[in-house]
Amino acid sequence: MAQEDVFKKIVSHCKEYGFVFPSSEIYDGLAAVYDYGQNGVELKNNIKQYWWKSMVLLHDNIVGIDSAIFMHPTIWKASGHVDAFNDPLIDNRDSKKRYRADVLIEDQIAKYDEKIEKEIAKARKRFGESFDEAQFRATNARVIEHQQKRDALHARYTEAMQGPDLAELKQIIIDEEIVDPISGTKNWTDVRQFNLMFSTEMGSVADGSNKVYLRPETAQGIFVNYLNVQKTGRMKIPFGIAQIGKAFRNEIVARQFIFRMREFEQMEMQFFVQPGTELEYFQKWKELRMKWHQALGFGAENYRFHDHEKLAHYANAATDIEFHMPFGFKEVEGIHSRTNFDLSQHEKFSGRSIKYFDPQTKESYTPYVIETSIGVDRMFLSVMCHSYKEEQLENGETRVVLMLPPALAPTKLAVLPLVKKDGLPEKAREIVNNLKFHFNTSYDEKDTIGKRYRRQDAVGTPFCVTVDYDTLQDNTVTLRFRDTMEQERVSIDQLLSIIEDKVSITSLLKKLQ
Amino acid sequence: MAQEDVFKKIVSHCKEYGFVFPSSEIYDGLAAVYDYGQNGVELKNNIKQYWWKSMVLLHDNIVGIDSAIFMHPTIWKASGHVDAFNDPLIDNRDSKKRYRADVLIEDQIAKYDEKIEKEIAKARKRFGESFDEAQFRATNARVIEHQQKRDALHARYTEAMQGPDLAELKQIIIDEEIVDPISGTKNWTDVRQFNLMFSTEMGSVADGSNKVYLRPETAQGIFVNYLNVQKTGRMKIPFGIAQIGKAFRNEIVARQFIFRMREFEQMEMQFFVQPGTELEYFQKWKELRMKWHQALGFGAENYRFHDHEKLAHYANAATDIEFHMPFGFKEVEGIHSRTNFDLSQHEKFSGRSIKYFDPQTKESYTPYVIETSIGVDRMFLSVMCHSYKEEQLENGETRVVLMLPPALAPTKLAVLPLVKKDGLPEKAREIVNNLKFHFNTSYDEKDTIGKRYRRQDAVGTPFCVTVDYDTLQDNTVTLRFRDTMEQERVSIDQLLSIIEDKVSITSLLKKLQ
Repeated sequence: MAQEDVFKKIVSHCKEYGFVFPSSEIYDGLAAVYDYGQNGVELKNNIKQYWWKSMVLLHDNIVGIDSAIFMHPTIWKASGHVDAFNDPLIDNRDSKKRYRADVLIEDQIAKYDEKIEKEIAKARKRFGESFDEAQFRATNARVIEHQQKRDALHARYTEAMQGPDLAELKQIIIDEEIVDPISGTKNWTDVRQFNLMFSTEMGSVADGSNKVYLRPETAQGIFVNYLNVQKTGRMKIPFGIAQIGKAFRNEIVARQFIFRMREFEQMEMQFFVQPGTELEYFQKWKELRMKWHQALGFGAENYRFHDHEKLAHYANAATDIEFHMPFGFKEVEGIHSRTNFDLSQHEKFSGRSIKYFDPQTKESYTPYVIETSIGVDRMFLSVMCHSYKEEQLENGETRVVLMLPPALAPTKLAVLPLVKKDGLPEKAREIVNNLKFHFNTSYDEKDTIGKRYRRQDAVGTPFCVTVDYDTLQDNTVTLRFRDTMEQERVSIDQLLSIIEDKVSITSLLKKLQ
Repeated sequence: MAQEDVFKKIVSHCKEYGFVFPSSEIYDGLAAVYDYGQNGVELKNNIKQYWWKSMVLLHDNIVGIDSAIFMHPTIWKASGHVDAFNDPLIDNRDSKKRYRADVLIEDQIAKYDEKIEKEIAKARKRFGESFDEAQFRATNARVIEHQQKRDALHARYTEAMQGPDLAELKQIIIDEEIVDPISGTKNWTDVRQFNLMFSTEMGSVADGSNKVYLRPETAQGIFVNYLNVQKTGRMKIPFGIAQIGKAFRNEIVARQFIFRMREFEQMEMQFFVQPGTELEYFQKWKELRMKWHQALGFGAENYRFHDHEKLAHYANAATDIEFHMPFGFKEVEGIHSRTNFDLSQHEKFSGRSIKYFDPQTKESYTPYVIETSIGVDRMFLSVMCHSYKEEQLENGETRVVLMLPPALAPTKLAVLPLVKKDGLPEKAREIVNNLKFHFNTSYDEKDTIGKRYRRQDAVGTPFCVTVDYDTLQDNTVTLRFRDTMEQERVSIDQLLSIIEDKVSITSLLKKLQ
């Protein structure tokens, strides 16, 4: 099955089984915004718990905070977002649609690649049958021409994006004769910069408004609070502050389901270190974060680092952890050595000294910062993509199963009475009522046992228990394992101890030791 | 100590010990917005866990969702928020300040009460010394005059608020000669309606903008998803959907610390029932929710119901659970029988049928809804207010202690080596490293044991363990209990079993059985 089809199946599985719904669906939806359903919210919460506990419980020099989405507007001047957090946009006058100029040009570059691929595919077919030197030379010439055009365009585009040079970006669009996919015309406006932050008006001042932004990242909430946390928490450098929360970006091109949304959730940890030691901690956090991902058991081959060659103005080292999605290796986490850029900017713009006083050296300095930043929704998507399996069974049927790590699964155990009579439902309910205090336990009595197993497979429930007539005699049940479909007879009294350890977040945390 | 002073102390304790910081403090703050610090975030998360688990784990007919803050704008037309979620505001032309007209008038009504109280206080003093009939009659006449004026004003105001009649509200302000507390003038504009929703612009349409709102309540996210959840989760009526999330209201008068904020968090559960059965479930949820609050052990006398006499247009029964705060009994939770108002409105505005098909009666109907709605921040404040204690010790010192329910405490256990040498720190760290996987455990070696105990008391840590020289010999430690300050010698191996059960959310959930 093509990877694109796999992805489509995952998206529709997400909807069909209550993981992710399009937002405001009965109103025909809201673009690039999604809601998490009854299973999605549990999976998402478990991912957040795993991250939070790995930071705050396991490191006694890391604490959390929860800062507000609204912040003082000058913070975004200081951070550079008001001036530089822009996309170059261009409108088509006929369709009235707005596009990212850089994306239009990148798509154009990709078209040359497609042309090259097509020539090569044709050549492979043709010369597999009979070799014709003249045709070979002609093909070769066309491929080289496409390559040259592509490389020239790429070079021109890369230079235009420095700055960026908006007039040059428009000129490229004109020279390449790029047309609007909707109107089919080349009737373009100039390219203008649009800020990606959402803004709104707050407050009680009558004359003139008070513009505030929805934060585009959670990091700044940590920076402006770092000294409050350090002092009230008596933290000593090196120490970290972790935060989970919503962030907002008015993306023009929102793609790939929940991978890039206008409203999304971040898990960020800023680690404050002595200047000069930052690269050592950068290395350390690269390793720790990769270990965190791999503890989920998805296979090391599905991860890779992508070190940044071109660094942002505030960074002196940066890497992404990429995960193998159905649409390629994609960033799920960024690790950045942000220097003292942000803290220095906040000193400058707030006029307050926010230096750290080192009790050992008796010196004050502005700490350097290592950031680990991960998108909850991307992480969710990577977990869904890896866990979704279609298995051919021996009887010829296909089983759809979500092989979620048990600690992340929305429901840990389903209790199923074999039949809806003779006291079996009551016995099953009794098991649910005892175990529900410890983990998410569900009850299902509808349809055949086989159908019920399939339903639990589809939402990733790692354990099912069947209550039958023997249960009433000897207090044992059939315990069925999701991944192997193997079954085992166990005593009801053993269920808690067999299951609890395997489904707890603690089980994942212990792998990080 | 006056209740007002207690409240001030709690607010400053929240800042000093890393519970709540003013937002953007280094930029002189952002009004009515607060950040949760390293201890605050843990306490808040524990409150959320307690609520979520009590809903989703304990009821097999309740599931969660997590819908986005951004929703289709028509949803807020349907819900009535675009047309009717307004405050009547008035500006003073001299101070350029904006006020809620209703609050100005209510403050004026309160002034008559103050005058009456003053007359009575004077009379109490005077007539306690010698009785003078003429003076008594004069006092009495003044009191009656104030009462009459107050009652007349109250009646006029109440009538003006129906509608509301904005011109009449302004006329009251003029007739009562209300002055702006800042400019001291009566130079008022007309009263106008201002919508409380924050709005922003979203998207990629070039001509004309796409106005969206930050949700003012999480409930509508449940209503528009209810049929998706019901179908994909195979739910049968009666069933409930729970959600925790941020909501936003552009409050002009934001008061009492985190009690009324512009950005706040809600925990809402909407319970869908068959029409005609709603009042029975309304009663049931009143009882269940009160039980949930009282399981925290703060004493039944600190809670009361406040049944609404005047109902909102969508409700046929409503009550508040009020908690005894230092500034009076205040609403922390609302329980509302919302009829089928919201779902019917969404049917009308979306043009989609969102009726429930009842498999037993084979009929389709629009369910009725019972809502339980609680503010996380208010709940947090009520927990802080009740837990904050100043105790006089036998040695004359004052101990400040947060007697938080152990399941809600940010840190469960602090491990303290008696001295910073001879292997005691290493032994203490070993205990931390074993227990940290199970609950929040901290380590502290600075200052005397007495000071360290006080620090843990101030952040509500229920257990402290001291590692001394005997520990190295017999593997026992001193376990100290926060509330009683009693100490007990226990084996290190027992710590997990002694502490875990008492500090887990499960311990609270079991009280709800």
